[in-house]
Amino acid sequence: MSVNDQNGAALGQAFTQNVIDAMGPKTDPRLREVMTGLIRHIHDFAREVRLTTDEWMAGVEMINQAGRMSDDKRNEGQLLCDVIGLESLVDDITFAAAANSTTGLTASAILGPFWRQDTPHRDNGSSVTFDTPPDGEVVYMHGQVTDVETGEPLQNASREHNLRGIFHTDDQGKYSFYCLRPTPYPVPQDGPAGKLLGMMDRPVFRPAHIHLMVQHKGHKSLTTQIFDKDCKYLGNDSVFAVKDELSVEFVPRKGDPLAPLELCYDIRLAKAS
Amino acid sequence: MSVNDQNGAALGQAFTQNVIDAMGPKTDPRLREVMTGLIRHIHDFAREVRLTTDEWMAGVEMINQAGRMSDDKRNEGQLLCDVIGLESLVDDITFAAAANSTTGLTASAILGPFWRQDTPHRDNGSSVTFDTPPDGEVVYMHGQVTDVETGEPLQNASREHNLRGIFHTDDQGKYSFYCLRPTPYPVPQDGPAGKLLGMMDRPVFRPAHIHLMVQHKGHKSLTTQIFDKDCKYLGNDSVFAVKDELSVEFVPRKGDPLAPLELCYDIRLAKAS
Repeated sequence: MSVNDQNGAALGQAFTQNVIDAMGPKTDPRLREVMTGLIRHIHDFAREVRLTTDEWMAGVEMINQAGRMSDDKRNEGQLLCDVIGLESLVDDITFAAAANSTTGLTASAILGPFWRQDTPHRDNGSSVTFDTPPDGEVVYMHGQVTDVETGEPLQNASREHNLRGIFHTDDQGKYSFYCLRPTPYPVPQDGPAGKLLGMMDRPVFRPAHIHLMVQHKGHKSLTTQIFDKDCKYLGNDSVFAVKDELSVEFVPRKGDPLAPLELCYDIRLAKAS
Repeated sequence: MSVNDQNGAALGQAFTQNVIDAMGPKTDPRLREVMTGLIRHIHDFAREVRLTTDEWMAGVEMINQAGRMSDDKRNEGQLLCDVIGLESLVDDITFAAAANSTTGLTASAILGPFWRQDTPHRDNGSSVTFDTPPDGEVVYMHGQVTDVETGEPLQNASREHNLRGIFHTDDQGKYSFYCLRPTPYPVPQDGPAGKLLGMMDRPVFRPAHIHLMVQHKGHKSLTTQIFDKDCKYLGNDSVFAVKDELSVEFVPRKGDPLAPLELCYDIRLAKAS
């Protein structure tokens, strides 16, 4: 009658199957697939490491604390996933599904926990830097958004970036703006994700990067990050988002009093299916 | 130099190994063991079900919401674990480790998300029921706390229960009080755990039960629940805590104007190691 017929019955797979089988017939098929996998792996994990009540409760408290400090400007639950590589993994899975057999498509990377919905629209060629620090290096960033298969320039594609602005490509699919050469920074250490990094004796830095989100009607949206190939943290990103094909080089720019550096980055989008 | 040498590298086990290997040498050995298992299983889960960014983000939002509604009277992160059977599983693992080869030890069960630290001390024979509802049935509950191996009665063991009180056993290890016969109740449905239960098309009820936490100096503490064997939800507890040996029978009590029912429940504790 009960699910545990003797002490320790939960230690066997029959208990796990019982939890899975508890899902009713009205469960959405995809949710059933996801929850079945989640329940099986979480149970196997607990059994394998002989997880104790105290250890599990420490994990619960970490989750509750992450939720309490999350708001519309910071997502600590997401950061917890990031430091164990989950967002990068899920991003790759989603990208692989979108890419299919297409080659040349600009690679995706994680959105990260600091994206904001209220980013302002700006004109091409304008600057997103308000307070350039004494050691900051201004960069003229530009490029072209094209269809990955036809090479056709995509007009009115919008680009947002993290310091932050939305730009619209011209009739040649081109965009341009001034920004700062990014610098490495540590992920926030005042929450459970930072605490976990400390407990795992891991570097807290993210390599210097620029976030890109590119949207065009009729094409699949792209969320990615590009990384300064000279950054020393490229090999130990605390959230595991670095990909070789997303590493870029900032080169000297001549004849522009506004910026000593330049970055040209073209973007290739896939047609929406 | 980077961890992902090509598109989709995170889809392979090398990515997962890289995340695991990122743990530094100062990581506590047990934490390394737990995190290695967690990272491996969470990654395998994501790969197996081809978890998408949108699905993962829905999970993150569920975790953040659980944290936001948790406080010292309610633990929604815990309840999320409970509905996928994790607290019961971890409890069994911990109990198995405590029980070793001892037979006869009173079985443990989950603490649940509503335990409170401020439970008052009360005299044996007193009542914990303040407002008996018209359809409520008063029960005289009593029993003896003994050492599981020697049978020796344990004096000054303290018992807490959920409606709620702390009682101290007498020199015979005996306790007694009046309470209500428990009734089934639904887990809270205003949070992500209740929402998840709904999405999984599962019953939300917990079978009628009484929480027990028994502590005695020199013996291992016991946290458990006992279940009314006549309850119709015994076979589909929403948090999978029911065990046959924790099912109890409420029997008629004669000659006591205060209670028509009686429950005798003896408890056997193991010596602290």
